[in-house]
Amino acid sequence: MARLPKSVIKLIEQFERLPGIGPKSAQRLVFYLLHNPEEQINEFATRLQAIKTETTLCSICHQVTEHDPCEICSDQARDETLLCVVEQPLDLIAIDNSNKFRGKYHVLHGSIDPLNNIGPEQIFLRDLLERLNGVNELILATNPTMEGEATALFIKELIEKSDKHEDLKITRIGHGLPIGADIEYADGITLARALEGRRELD
Amino acid sequence: MARLPKSVIKLIEQFERLPGIGPKSAQRLVFYLLHNPEEQINEFATRLQAIKTETTLCSICHQVTEHDPCEICSDQARDETLLCVVEQPLDLIAIDNSNKFRGKYHVLHGSIDPLNNIGPEQIFLRDLLERLNGVNELILATNPTMEGEATALFIKELIEKSDKHEDLKITRIGHGLPIGADIEYADGITLARALEGRRELD
Repeated sequence: MARLPKSVIKLIEQFERLPGIGPKSAQRLVFYLLHNPEEQINEFATRLQAIKTETTLCSICHQVTEHDPCEICSDQARDETLLCVVEQPLDLIAIDNSNKFRGKYHVLHGSIDPLNNIGPEQIFLRDLLERLNGVNELILATNPTMEGEATALFIKELIEKSDKHEDLKITRIGHGLPIGADIEYADGITLARALEGRRELD
Repeated sequence: MARLPKSVIKLIEQFERLPGIGPKSAQRLVFYLLHNPEEQINEFATRLQAIKTETTLCSICHQVTEHDPCEICSDQARDETLLCVVEQPLDLIAIDNSNKFRGKYHVLHGSIDPLNNIGPEQIFLRDLLERLNGVNELILATNPTMEGEATALFIKELIEKSDKHEDLKITRIGHGLPIGADIEYADGITLARALEGRRELD
């Protein structure tokens, strides 16, 4: 019975732990790396360690950042009265790069998902309430998935129950057809949301 | 414009260089790793470096190994008169684990592929000829792909042109229907090969 070297097996196991990478892809990746020069492998290893040593979470908005507080939280030109709640750091980047929002953000790092044992305590939800003073509008930009919708609803009810922030406007990011989509192929729920969210042409 | 920390971008670039991993998967993998504890990331980095420092290629058969010569090449119980040529280290493992072959191996680390600038000099082909003394049968177990077939044919012609090893039997691994396959869904070339390779029932 021929065996792979132990170090190769151990690295395959490391890759298998990553989301969306099965045993066969892990093998393929490791054998690809084996054919790389040692300097490139060392560079990869150094880069890997750097994401933990060179980044931190912003203590205000919880975005992944090199400096705490992050660039956006320390930007005086941003509108402090607008706060946008997102699930993940990449959601923040995507929304900010649309250039349609110049307020501040709050990154939850997840959504409420009871099936996977993620409740309100497992995400950055508690300190969101402490950030609402001086905010006029809270935009809930969690994903249009079951978990994202549940999280948005949970945040809305939490604020309403707190009996503070009565003047706060709570909005949900618009749902509908993505630009470039085909109505013929759109699913029923998206079409229903697109109709609900129709706007008068100006 | 919000930006990701430099160390995150650099690690995404490292993952993007791997085969089959696009920009979106690379991002997803890096953000998954960001949520891992530092010890796990360091373990991954250490494992990554170990595949270069703790493995080498066997100087006889070129299999990836911890010790040179490898376990199979130093195994006295193996039949020295049978030599099986494969493209990749994982092919050797797969064939050996079928328990149908107890001879020795030769790993080419590739196949002749002119479109990708891989000629006979870019794979471990030259020293294969030096290993043929005392060999009775050479089994060409390169892949049943265009490149694998071309490589098998190239090796056969190379040996015939050398005018040595005239008694050497050169065989090609059998092609046909894989076990459990459905004739209805088999492609025409596989069926043609399966018919050519038919055997009398005993």
